[in-house]
Amino acid sequence: MTATQTGSQTAKIPGQVRVGVLGGGQLGRMLGLAGVPLGMQFTFFDPSPEASAAEVGDLIVGNYDDDAALLRLCDAVDVVTFEFENVPVRAAELVASRRPLWPPVSTLHVAQDRVREKECFNLLGIPTAPFAAVDSLDELRDAVTRIGLPGILKTRTLGYDGKGQAMLRTEDDVVKAWDAVGGVPLVYEGFVNFTRELSILAVRGRDGVVVTYPLVENSHSEGILRLSVAPAPAVSDAVAEAAAALATRILDHLWYVGLLAIELFETADGLVANEMAPRVHNSGHWTIEGAETSQFENHLRAVCDLPLGDTATRGHAAMLNVIGTAPTPSAILHADAAAHVHLYGKREAPRRKIGHVTVRGNDANDVATRVSAIRRVLANTTPSA
Amino acid sequence: MTATQTGSQTAKIPGQVRVGVLGGGQLGRMLGLAGVPLGMQFTFFDPSPEASAAEVGDLIVGNYDDDAALLRLCDAVDVVTFEFENVPVRAAELVASRRPLWPPVSTLHVAQDRVREKECFNLLGIPTAPFAAVDSLDELRDAVTRIGLPGILKTRTLGYDGKGQAMLRTEDDVVKAWDAVGGVPLVYEGFVNFTRELSILAVRGRDGVVVTYPLVENSHSEGILRLSVAPAPAVSDAVAEAAAALATRILDHLWYVGLLAIELFETADGLVANEMAPRVHNSGHWTIEGAETSQFENHLRAVCDLPLGDTATRGHAAMLNVIGTAPTPSAILHADAAAHVHLYGKREAPRRKIGHVTVRGNDANDVATRVSAIRRVLANTTPSA
Repeated sequence: MTATQTGSQTAKIPGQVRVGVLGGGQLGRMLGLAGVPLGMQFTFFDPSPEASAAEVGDLIVGNYDDDAALLRLCDAVDVVTFEFENVPVRAAELVASRRPLWPPVSTLHVAQDRVREKECFNLLGIPTAPFAAVDSLDELRDAVTRIGLPGILKTRTLGYDGKGQAMLRTEDDVVKAWDAVGGVPLVYEGFVNFTRELSILAVRGRDGVVVTYPLVENSHSEGILRLSVAPAPAVSDAVAEAAAALATRILDHLWYVGLLAIELFETADGLVANEMAPRVHNSGHWTIEGAETSQFENHLRAVCDLPLGDTATRGHAAMLNVIGTAPTPSAILHADAAAHVHLYGKREAPRRKIGHVTVRGNDANDVATRVSAIRRVLANTTPSA
Repeated sequence: MTATQTGSQTAKIPGQVRVGVLGGGQLGRMLGLAGVPLGMQFTFFDPSPEASAAEVGDLIVGNYDDDAALLRLCDAVDVVTFEFENVPVRAAELVASRRPLWPPVSTLHVAQDRVREKECFNLLGIPTAPFAAVDSLDELRDAVTRIGLPGILKTRTLGYDGKGQAMLRTEDDVVKAWDAVGGVPLVYEGFVNFTRELSILAVRGRDGVVVTYPLVENSHSEGILRLSVAPAPAVSDAVAEAAAALATRILDHLWYVGLLAIELFETADGLVANEMAPRVHNSGHWTIEGAETSQFENHLRAVCDLPLGDTATRGHAAMLNVIGTAPTPSAILHADAAAHVHLYGKREAPRRKIGHVTVRGNDANDVATRVSAIRRVLANTTPSA
């Protein structure tokens, strides 16, 4: 029995599991903050020596084609996950050949390609915008004829925060859009007439159990998420059930383990899937204070085969992203001392997500008023907001 | 403007404050977990290279008489605090001569000595057990004659978790107690006829603002805290106000900055102060989930001159210490998936605090039922519980 080995180097350290994370940005950092209390130890893998997750774990600096560095990560940990959905599949496969890797590599394969992703949704009976793969200007013309205008031409891979996209409103935009983003595999997506953007966060455990968080309402500007409100106001039971059902269908189909975020459009005809992220997600940051178990802890519980935690909300929450530049924590807290400030230890840069602020309360109107006050503080500091 | 320096090494990292912490145990670790989201970076100072706070910051290994190591800490940080109230005053004074150190050194001087501490309480009109300083067997006989039996003989300094104490029930115990703990400065304390043990956590900012958390009810066994329930049930308004008032009196008197915990006895005649800890405290761990702002964040906000956060409770919370040995996180979460498991990354050892579990809910009875279930899991693993 270890209890008799007082002070011994060989006595057990309870809970110790070594978790590797591909990617060392803010999502990794928040995974670390959620996992350290469970006794987990973290090693992050990132191309940048400035990766801010290193504050809460070890850091291996390497590119995703550096096999030796990836194998050093495997040697250092018991289980691996990722916080970045553009991890090259080849790198993920190498890691998965040595250590359990969750979510499964196949998920990266699907989620990294907008066409495969939409095909997966449709296969499961989940509506999407009309879409067509486009590899040439002629194919774009065909797609526009078939799907109609307006629409958006997007890169099939590596797009995020509105990058690699061109809007088409008239026939004149066809060539312009092709010139702007052409030359790589593309997808043309028809316009969806939606009333608002929602997202659902769902977690599947190693044992196949699925839990979901309530729907979140998201507001974007310039292609970047600005505000998430949870639970989303005025969601009908039918919509809530449909969202949970489609999330479960996707998780089961992908034999998923961990947290999956699905972005949805709410339309007059029901929910339309936009895209999914096979990782913890910006629209789930409110769960740190606003839910009984955060998305970060639940992702780790799934990956480490622990029972999933309670996803019930604690009142109402709203999350504002801090983008580009940040006021001091003091300025934010002088505007609202009950706010929860999260800064990511990242340098300021235009359009960069460098933090977020969450407001939690028991009354939705009160939360909205507080959001306005914080938004004013952020606007005075953030030219891009 | 820094926003134009995209990717530059000189662009600002928002919130960055370097915090030094004397002591690198679980309290330091939880300070780090609370401060990293605010952009703070931590350097811990501890005699042990195994200090578990190192998971969330840098670690300087050194003894408290190692001036060179203490000065290295000062060079590495902007502000210093401590998580261990037995930091030698000389070491704290050296640090305070180089960097702002909060709470003030004078607080250590008072809190490290049970006689000075009680004199401070009495000076402020706060009742304590009757007590007398004892340096010889004769002085102990005098003290027992004056104060009566039963009573407890305690070391004046360096006592915690029931260590360095001897109970006196009859005249026969006088010599026995002296033989057990004599030879160092002692205090003899008369018995207090109390109904329960409470504690209050209070925070004073650099601007003198004071906030308090609701009273907590604590249960000890073998001199070690086992269970804290917050808010303490059935507290009258008069008792709540008296506790907040005495805490404020102490904080103002000591020109305190940071979180102070005061252990109290509830008696038929009102509150009696037992002792205080000039740091974050085990009876405040429930605040991580059970209050809008945790004791750890509020301590750091005070030390770093930020506005203090909301101390309102979120429903009802109970915290159980994990002592000696720990079940796996899986065993705890299989008993209650909504529980919050906190393991400290420390090796198992008899009587050692190696973690805690917090249960939060909207109904006090429900929380109590869940506590019983978790207690059974802990009891099956922890022989000393």
